[in-house]
Amino acid sequence: MTIHEAMQAVENVMLKVINSDVKTLRDASHHILEAGGKRVRPRLLMLGYEALGGTDIESAAPVAAAVELVHTASVVHDDINDHGVVRRGRPSVNSIWGRTFALLTGDFLFTKVYELMGPYKDLNIVLAEATVALVEGETLQASAVKENNFTRQVYYEIIARKTAALFRAAGVLGARLAGADEKAVEALGQYGYNVGLAFQIVDDILDLTADTSQLGKTSGIDLAQGRGYAAAYAGNGQSSNGVAVADVVEADDGDPMKTIKKKLLKGDAVAEGQAQAQQLAHMAVASLDVLPASNAKQELIDLAWMVVNRDH
Amino acid sequence: MTIHEAMQAVENVMLKVINSDVKTLRDASHHILEAGGKRVRPRLLMLGYEALGGTDIESAAPVAAAVELVHTASVVHDDINDHGVVRRGRPSVNSIWGRTFALLTGDFLFTKVYELMGPYKDLNIVLAEATVALVEGETLQASAVKENNFTRQVYYEIIARKTAALFRAAGVLGARLAGADEKAVEALGQYGYNVGLAFQIVDDILDLTADTSQLGKTSGIDLAQGRGYAAAYAGNGQSSNGVAVADVVEADDGDPMKTIKKKLLKGDAVAEGQAQAQQLAHMAVASLDVLPASNAKQELIDLAWMVVNRDH
Repeated sequence: MTIHEAMQAVENVMLKVINSDVKTLRDASHHILEAGGKRVRPRLLMLGYEALGGTDIESAAPVAAAVELVHTASVVHDDINDHGVVRRGRPSVNSIWGRTFALLTGDFLFTKVYELMGPYKDLNIVLAEATVALVEGETLQASAVKENNFTRQVYYEIIARKTAALFRAAGVLGARLAGADEKAVEALGQYGYNVGLAFQIVDDILDLTADTSQLGKTSGIDLAQGRGYAAAYAGNGQSSNGVAVADVVEADDGDPMKTIKKKLLKGDAVAEGQAQAQQLAHMAVASLDVLPASNAKQELIDLAWMVVNRDH
Repeated sequence: MTIHEAMQAVENVMLKVINSDVKTLRDASHHILEAGGKRVRPRLLMLGYEALGGTDIESAAPVAAAVELVHTASVVHDDINDHGVVRRGRPSVNSIWGRTFALLTGDFLFTKVYELMGPYKDLNIVLAEATVALVEGETLQASAVKENNFTRQVYYEIIARKTAALFRAAGVLGARLAGADEKAVEALGQYGYNVGLAFQIVDDILDLTADTSQLGKTSGIDLAQGRGYAAAYAGNGQSSNGVAVADVVEADDGDPMKTIKKKLLKGDAVAEGQAQAQQLAHMAVASLDVLPASNAKQELIDLAWMVVNRDH
């Protein structure tokens, strides 16, 4: 198989599974899925599957589709909570259909995940636990914003759950589907986890430095995300407690994000985050040592570097 | 086993599974679960299980818990969309923790469902399909409100999906867990479906005629629900298209619900709905004919009548 064929199979599963006879759910799900997105999680899963000897695209594609649908559902719900109006270069679901239908579309996509996972008894729990972690991470983030207690440690706890857990699951699931031994499963899980952390750090930096048209999603106003990184990294080197968001925000009563950006760009906070993302990519690539050489392995290595070197 | 022991086991599973280390999710989930609720869906499942010879409470309780958590998650999300402030006699999750945390709490509960269902490979799909139907039903309802096109047919399509599908699944799951044959599975599924329809019709009537303190949840403002029934039944006998909500609402620019209530109580719309619920209960009880006599069977019969004769 080629990764291109595999990813096409994943798209086909997703488009088939969202084909509800309820027009709004079908339209809104198509809207968010057909906008594309990077598909980095299912790609990671399918490459891991192939790198460990898997050859049956049809048996792995539904699980990769389920992983991407978990992410997609969380994005739809995120945009409700953050009032995001642009996502994947298109108007967000909530901005077109309103909050009520966006909430239901997210529920629909989450529900389709366990319809897809139904037949995969032993793998079900892997994705379920990652999805719980994702929701917990989002909740920790919302709490940290509300209670104004972002520190670097809190920031890492948040991104480990809301992002790295699902990337880790993608690695574990790809390996398990290929029938790999525990050492290889653990290696791909570790790879996924570190790529996930790197992915989120880079995402947060881009959220602060790039503009909406470049990102294809609302930037800046994604305050919870931006604030977390800002507080975690603007406290760079000063204390393990980082810096309270309030300190960063209060300086400018006009546009808090502008103040955060100024502080970040003046210091070396962005450079430090980028260096940590690079470090995580190195660690991720190192975990792959136990895998035999293959095209798929090389593509996993490339994927790790793509994640940290991207500009959108 | 007694049904009391069985229901205690279901409670224990639910309380254990929501025990997240993320305080807000744990607190909000406890808040909504410990408020009680009627637990009619898991009760139906456990009684059906027992009526068909099941004796292992521990193997059936997690599935019954999953069914109740689907319902609970949908209730938490419903209250966001409907701005409900009272639920199960307590302030709703959104009214205490706000919309963002309520949305995440609902996601958390939905996700715990598939963690619970993980080991039940063949039964997974039954609950997944019912959950999809529930979300579709909620969406159809929101669409009907928005597009102002409630008819009696639309009303039935909505309540069949948003309520009867999950009741049906509870019946099917109880029978399957007991290892029953297809005839018995179908009988309990049919029983659940008709009890579910009756349950929702009675719920909608109570929503229009009872007050908040009696119901333990916000009444009246649950407009989507009230409107559906009103439009479906206020059109009683006149045409199969029912009556457009606008016709009912426009007559009083002060309080649209008051106008709907007046119209309903003046006509025989409430009496007609009650008669249909009774009819559905008769049909539900008739489906149980194929089951052998037992205490559990008698309790299923009582449950059907309790559902239609309740006043809250």
